[in-house]
Amino acid sequence: MTMNKQLLLKKRPVGLPTKDTWGLVETEIPIPGDGEVLLQLEYISLDPAMRGWLNDVRSYIPPVQIDEVMRAGGVGKVIESNHADFKVGDYLYGNPGVQQYAVTDGKGYHKVDASLAPLPVYTGTLGMPGMTAYFGILEVGELKEGDAVLVSGAAGAVGSVVGQIAKIKNCKVIGIAGGAEKCQYLIDEMGFDGAIDYKNQDVKVAIKKHFPKGIDVYFDNVGGDILNHALGRLAMRARIVICGAISQYNNTTPVKGPSNYLSLLVSRGTMRGMVVFDYAKNYGTAAQQMGQWMMEGKLKSREDINVGIENFHETFLKLFSGEKMGKLVLKVSEG
Amino acid sequence: MTMNKQLLLKKRPVGLPTKDTWGLVETEIPIPGDGEVLLQLEYISLDPAMRGWLNDVRSYIPPVQIDEVMRAGGVGKVIESNHADFKVGDYLYGNPGVQQYAVTDGKGYHKVDASLAPLPVYTGTLGMPGMTAYFGILEVGELKEGDAVLVSGAAGAVGSVVGQIAKIKNCKVIGIAGGAEKCQYLIDEMGFDGAIDYKNQDVKVAIKKHFPKGIDVYFDNVGGDILNHALGRLAMRARIVICGAISQYNNTTPVKGPSNYLSLLVSRGTMRGMVVFDYAKNYGTAAQQMGQWMMEGKLKSREDINVGIENFHETFLKLFSGEKMGKLVLKVSEG
Repeated sequence: MTMNKQLLLKKRPVGLPTKDTWGLVETEIPIPGDGEVLLQLEYISLDPAMRGWLNDVRSYIPPVQIDEVMRAGGVGKVIESNHADFKVGDYLYGNPGVQQYAVTDGKGYHKVDASLAPLPVYTGTLGMPGMTAYFGILEVGELKEGDAVLVSGAAGAVGSVVGQIAKIKNCKVIGIAGGAEKCQYLIDEMGFDGAIDYKNQDVKVAIKKHFPKGIDVYFDNVGGDILNHALGRLAMRARIVICGAISQYNNTTPVKGPSNYLSLLVSRGTMRGMVVFDYAKNYGTAAQQMGQWMMEGKLKSREDINVGIENFHETFLKLFSGEKMGKLVLKVSEG
Repeated sequence: MTMNKQLLLKKRPVGLPTKDTWGLVETEIPIPGDGEVLLQLEYISLDPAMRGWLNDVRSYIPPVQIDEVMRAGGVGKVIESNHADFKVGDYLYGNPGVQQYAVTDGKGYHKVDASLAPLPVYTGTLGMPGMTAYFGILEVGELKEGDAVLVSGAAGAVGSVVGQIAKIKNCKVIGIAGGAEKCQYLIDEMGFDGAIDYKNQDVKVAIKKHFPKGIDVYFDNVGGDILNHALGRLAMRARIVICGAISQYNNTTPVKGPSNYLSLLVSRGTMRGMVVFDYAKNYGTAAQQMGQWMMEGKLKSREDINVGIENFHETFLKLFSGEKMGKLVLKVSEG
């Protein structure tokens, strides 16, 4: 193998990305310079936020440029090293982009221990989604013992961890997900107290039933009507964590604003946005705590592993169709 | 004078109240029992929140019932007293409703000093609107020196005080109001740094011009498009105080949700609702501070005084047409 397959952004999508959004190219495997390593990437992380990076708008991070390698997190093995801290055989997590090989000076990368958890877990529960869940529910959501918690996108990489952390903190947790199978999984596997199937249930009615005294914390990954229904059922001093809005990312019409936002006034509620990068200096502490919970069996992780960089497009669409279970990853080469 | 004119709610309005929303009746002047006083009411406070009390929905306070005296704050003189703490000639502020005479045991009332400020000021800057502004901008908005502050409904009873307090705290303050006269008033009389005339200017463009580095605190009295434009121009860690939404109170269609709410994510912003009653235990401290600022000439007050309980309906509509300047009050009897 002497060539590096790379997935480039070729065209900004309007609405859902199409096959011609991307282009797969082959280039020479790059050669690491002084203080650099060459990584062979094994697992690439696929996350809803990536859709936002395709739009040419001011946001918390600059957009991916046309003909650039698509930005993505991923785990790879060091196969050549001119770096004092990393040796051949080490596994590193960082943001290599969607490709099979990458050269890096190590900035933004950290070592992961392949003997403690399978590599894909480092893109999920022990990676950015897990960090997002941890800081989102505990710090932004100001979770307190006994809170009644609602989480949307609950079977996803962030939502499933949010719910499990809230259970660890002795809260009542209801998750919203699409389909009976995911709802059963939330209750049976993730220990949620209940689940709402937004594809087959009246979400407004179900929220009312599950929260007779109102919602203390709503962790929002989806936006749209579900956010609006949650706003309509807030307990006093409720907190809403705005983590994402997957229902709106592929909109070709304007984003739907939550018409029930005046419930914030009635309930003296707070709606707060978050970006996980702000908590970078505390990732270490969080990862340690999360690893501890995993070892104790209190925190479970599930990955939906897909294979082949040439299947990126079809795999990426699963984020929005909901045809996946747990953290979506793409295996791009054999370790 | 032996009769008491009372304004009753006769019919729940759909949209803007109409003449038949109300009914004026005459009843006997009530007689105070043991521990009670009889008040002759002089000034009744007219506030946007009253529109919300007409709707038969769950809110922070129960709706006014049909055939009940319309709820309202007001100032009156004690003309008979069987109460140990209040003597004939004292002036009291409380929630007597829209009528000329009221009997009360004093709960929810407090004495006001007619020699320190004209009585109508106690329904405005030294009353609920002033308290709302004080706690809203300082506590809910977490105002810091040097913040760039935007306030809507800026020529109103709450907005004008919000802006003046922010100026006292060395902030940059821009107000949004309707019409050139009000905008001039904000700059010339209230000391604002600038004003945006939403009736004659492109609010989005004007906000961008006034806030090159973004808005730190937006105090929202109006909702609708203006809230949305403010959301589109937040500085990092911005705070939005949701105090009211006067543009939406008479809607016959669903409230317009702010489609730019995802800016909260990008800016790590907070949107928080408030109801002034929560700060009741600290009203005293706030009133003292506000009185001090008034004496020092740092805080100005302006009232729009209308006369005659029979003119309640036309006066009330001024809240929504914007044809008023400062705190709207109705003089219902001669002191």
